[in-house]
Amino acid sequence: MKACEGRIGRVFVIRLEDGDVVPECIEHFAEEKGVSVGQAILVGGIGGGDVVVGPRRSEGMPPEPILLPIDESHEVLRVCVLAPDKDSKPVLHIHAALGRAGQTMTGCLRQGVTTWLVGEVILYEIVDAKVLRIKDRQSGFELLEPGSN
Amino acid sequence: MKACEGRIGRVFVIRLEDGDVVPECIEHFAEEKGVSVGQAILVGGIGGGDVVVGPRRSEGMPPEPILLPIDESHEVLRVCVLAPDKDSKPVLHIHAALGRAGQTMTGCLRQGVTTWLVGEVILYEIVDAKVLRIKDRQSGFELLEPGSN
Amino acid sequence: MKACEGRIGRVFVIRLEDGDVVPECIEHFAEEKGVSVGQAILVGGIGGGDVVVGPRRSEGMPPEPILLPIDESHEVLRVCVLAPDKDSKPVLHIHAALGRAGQTMTGCLRQGVTTWLVGEVILYEIVDAKVLRIKDRQSGFELLEPGSN
Repeated sequence: MKACEGRIGRVFVIRLEDGDVVPECIEHFAEEKGVSVGQAILVGGIGGGDVVVGPRRSEGMPPEPILLPIDESHEVLRVCVLAPDKDSKPVLHIHAALGRAGQTMTGCLRQGVTTWLVGEVILYEIVDAKVLRIKDRQSGFELLEPGSN
Repeated sequence: MKACEGRIGRVFVIRLEDGDVVPECIEHFAEEKGVSVGQAILVGGIGGGDVVVGPRRSEGMPPEPILLPIDESHEVLRVCVLAPDKDSKPVLHIHAALGRAGQTMTGCLRQGVTTWLVGEVILYEIVDAKVLRIKDRQSGFELLEPGSN
Repeated sequence: MKACEGRIGRVFVIRLEDGDVVPECIEHFAEEKGVSVGQAILVGGIGGGDVVVGPRRSEGMPPEPILLPIDESHEVLRVCVLAPDKDSKPVLHIHAALGRAGQTMTGCLRQGVTTWLVGEVILYEIVDAKVLRIKDRQSGFELLEPGSN
């Protein structure tokens, strides 16, 4: 466990429109506004894309992702952590539960998904927190490294 | 994508009691306290109600909702966005994952659900954000419109 | 419904490492930092433990929990409420959706779960909120009691 401390900055209320692709559009917004570290929640629909629904095997690095496609529009809740990579680009890590007709798929949205009708986002900026996403050689993931910057 | 900026205001720690109906009871609380825009998370149980688990078809407006009833008590996580409608009434948009015995149903709670035993809510007020829910003719939904007030 | 008011304090950006056990490690961190009341979101993997996936029956107190084991690593989203018990120890109530290969299990993580590879946590401190977790005789649960301290 590693941690660093910050404080809350600006809060953004965002409406995603039909077809907007997540996480790209929120990352672009954050970059444009100069939001480097933050947290977001999202409420809304997703109509397409692919979801990382686990590593094929729990052991063995790097993990081989299981990818499932999204068919038809889903009702979704998402929580997200924003932190900059080594080039200072804000990268959004999103986990989501996507539901349709009583079935739910939960996973990571890093492959990109398309908004269906509307997405409501609250993005909190966190200032004074020294944290980076640094590529981990073993897993190949950009892991959160509090205390770095 | 549309956005507006605000800052954090008061924070409310709320305990829902057995039988409390969501979103109504939180909307009443927000109105009483003068919270117009906000974000909330909820942890707790749901014992009854109906969940919107997607549009029957992804194409074609307005969408026809698929409704599923809640049978027996479920363990639930919820994220919510609060924004006022054209009459300045705060309206809470809640998406939730409801689990029981290893099955999960994810959807929108706008039809109303009943608290089982307890619900724990953290409600963040967002001040200075110009945003309204405005009825969209095509979908029939009250969509978030940042920049309006 | 019962409520109390506070305001936001410090924000912590936390990286859980492979094998870290939740909620214990976050509760220890909160205690060490003097965070008494708070809210957290978590994004990351879980590799083992047990999940409370509902009461066996919705009627009858105390509820008998249904416990399901976690097999293989899951992609998870979590929302959490932190409040002190009668001995001033911060207790974290976590609800989570755990997904793998298109199936999702949603429940309460109070039995303890083990981090797989990484967990990203944003912990918000809430100051000036008078709230305790007090043991409820009927249910046996430590229920949130706003207004107490």
